[in-house]
Amino acid sequence: MHSPSSQSAHPAWIAVDWGTSNVRAWAMDDGSSILDQASSPLGMNAIAADDALSFEGVLIGLIDRWLPRDATVRVQVVICGMAGAKQGWLEAPYCSVPVRPDELASGAVRPDISDPRIDVAILPGLKQVDDPDVMRGEETQLVGFMAAHPAFDGWVCLPGTHSKWARVSGGAIRGFKTYMTGEVFALLSKQSILRHSMDDRWDDAVFEQAVREAASAPTGFLHRLFTVRASGLVGNADAASQPGASVLSGAVIGSEIADVVRDLGRDSQIAQIALIGDGKLAGLYRKALAAHGFDADAVDGEAITIAGLASAYRVINIS
Amino acid sequence: MHSPSSQSAHPAWIAVDWGTSNVRAWAMDDGSSILDQASSPLGMNAIAADDALSFEGVLIGLIDRWLPRDATVRVQVVICGMAGAKQGWLEAPYCSVPVRPDELASGAVRPDISDPRIDVAILPGLKQVDDPDVMRGEETQLVGFMAAHPAFDGWVCLPGTHSKWARVSGGAIRGFKTYMTGEVFALLSKQSILRHSMDDRWDDAVFEQAVREAASAPTGFLHRLFTVRASGLVGNADAASQPGASVLSGAVIGSEIADVVRDLGRDSQIAQIALIGDGKLAGLYRKALAAHGFDADAVDGEAITIAGLASAYRVINIS
Repeated sequence: MHSPSSQSAHPAWIAVDWGTSNVRAWAMDDGSSILDQASSPLGMNAIAADDALSFEGVLIGLIDRWLPRDATVRVQVVICGMAGAKQGWLEAPYCSVPVRPDELASGAVRPDISDPRIDVAILPGLKQVDDPDVMRGEETQLVGFMAAHPAFDGWVCLPGTHSKWARVSGGAIRGFKTYMTGEVFALLSKQSILRHSMDDRWDDAVFEQAVREAASAPTGFLHRLFTVRASGLVGNADAASQPGASVLSGAVIGSEIADVVRDLGRDSQIAQIALIGDGKLAGLYRKALAAHGFDADAVDGEAITIAGLASAYRVINIS
Repeated sequence: MHSPSSQSAHPAWIAVDWGTSNVRAWAMDDGSSILDQASSPLGMNAIAADDALSFEGVLIGLIDRWLPRDATVRVQVVICGMAGAKQGWLEAPYCSVPVRPDELASGAVRPDISDPRIDVAILPGLKQVDDPDVMRGEETQLVGFMAAHPAFDGWVCLPGTHSKWARVSGGAIRGFKTYMTGEVFALLSKQSILRHSMDDRWDDAVFEQAVREAASAPTGFLHRLFTVRASGLVGNADAASQPGASVLSGAVIGSEIADVVRDLGRDSQIAQIALIGDGKLAGLYRKALAAHGFDADAVDGEAITIAGLASAYRVINIS
């Protein structure tokens, strides 16, 4: 990271990831290096809920110090994420799979801008009509991943509130599958009767056992959840000693992974697996995959977001 | 129902079902007929949260008008449900499966009572140590069901927040399985992103299709949930026309039923299925079972609760 105060010139372009609950911006030089960064909690939901806020106003507030004093040149801003949703700044209609990175960039929309110092392009999301599914933002991470791994042939996993698995081959995103894993875990651990069974304890072996059970008895999911509660009540010392969070996490992530492993088994060849993110959640996914004998390479999530926006910028800049 | 004002004498005994969020009481004559009934929202949670409330005080407030003016005779009160939980009036430790109705009644505990006009017996809940599971209240419904169907050999389903399936044969409860079906449906339909996809529409065929999919692709549960949201966004007219509540309900109830059908398939003989309740929820369970070719007899839930308390009263009264 460089400090912008030492920069006399403005950035070549600005990368923005505008999510539901926050927005992040990066001042970029032409060589795809980061000059500076900024972020704010003013995601799509905050702006939609407050008449005094506008997307352009929030954006300028975030990047104003990077912009030239006069309007002799417009700096290109490239945005991915919820700014392109129907409830966002300007709807960028979904592209359909299969899709190549340049097709995604060509689907960008350009909102009317009052400030003469910037041009704004908002990237589209991605949809799948058969087996209905959608993403907004993750497609740009996939593009960034593909830019760094042009020969990749396999599955890319983006764990999170709505975890995504995308099939990538031949330089295109072929299809994808979303799982409500993170949201279901949050609801169950914080708002269901299982909240009484959550504490700070953790046991990897218990997590891995729950992952395996989720695959061997997939119809038992809603029953397995209740055993998290019941284990502490029946006086079964073995069961009571299992940390509830490890069982619940293993049951929920394990349900997702059991389905993915089925899809992997249907693949005509042994596919690679890439795991976006290197935090605690990605670590759990790696353990769950390992319980099924699969190895996954971890990739930094922020780096590929910026790489995906840079890839789109290059397409937009020459068109 | 008879009006108590026409009764000169007090009831022979009083039946009480004390749940988490409400309490119901019935004045009974010796022949197990209902003389009068009363209810209140003062369930276990309300009493636990308010220092000014006591279980005895709430009970007397509910049944005082049924009690004799003088204390020449004590009226037996028989209580099932959460009054016997650890956080309740007095803990009635769980009995273990397999269990016969008279063993359950013998496990009743007797709290100290200030009012000289009543005796109180609180019935125990039921636990299963292997495949940990618990119930409090439903065991009394099962006892009432068994009193009316002494030769029953099969599964009894009690749909609800925590849906229960009990294996009953030879006059005993052999084992049971709880599913978090109702609670998971409530959380997803009211608090997850899927709340945006809920409306008043309903389609039985869509529900039944979701039930079948839950069985044919059980690992896909967390993915199927997200398609409820995505269907309205991808411009797939077939998918968008499916009422979200029918898909979600079919996916969640269908997950439970898929597991039950596996257990039914393991049974050495073709087992009967009885479904407690005759409302909308029981109707959905009947449809979900029918989608798998199983027929279920519906049984009134309140009637068997009272029958179960009456069965316990007879054991307590002669001991």
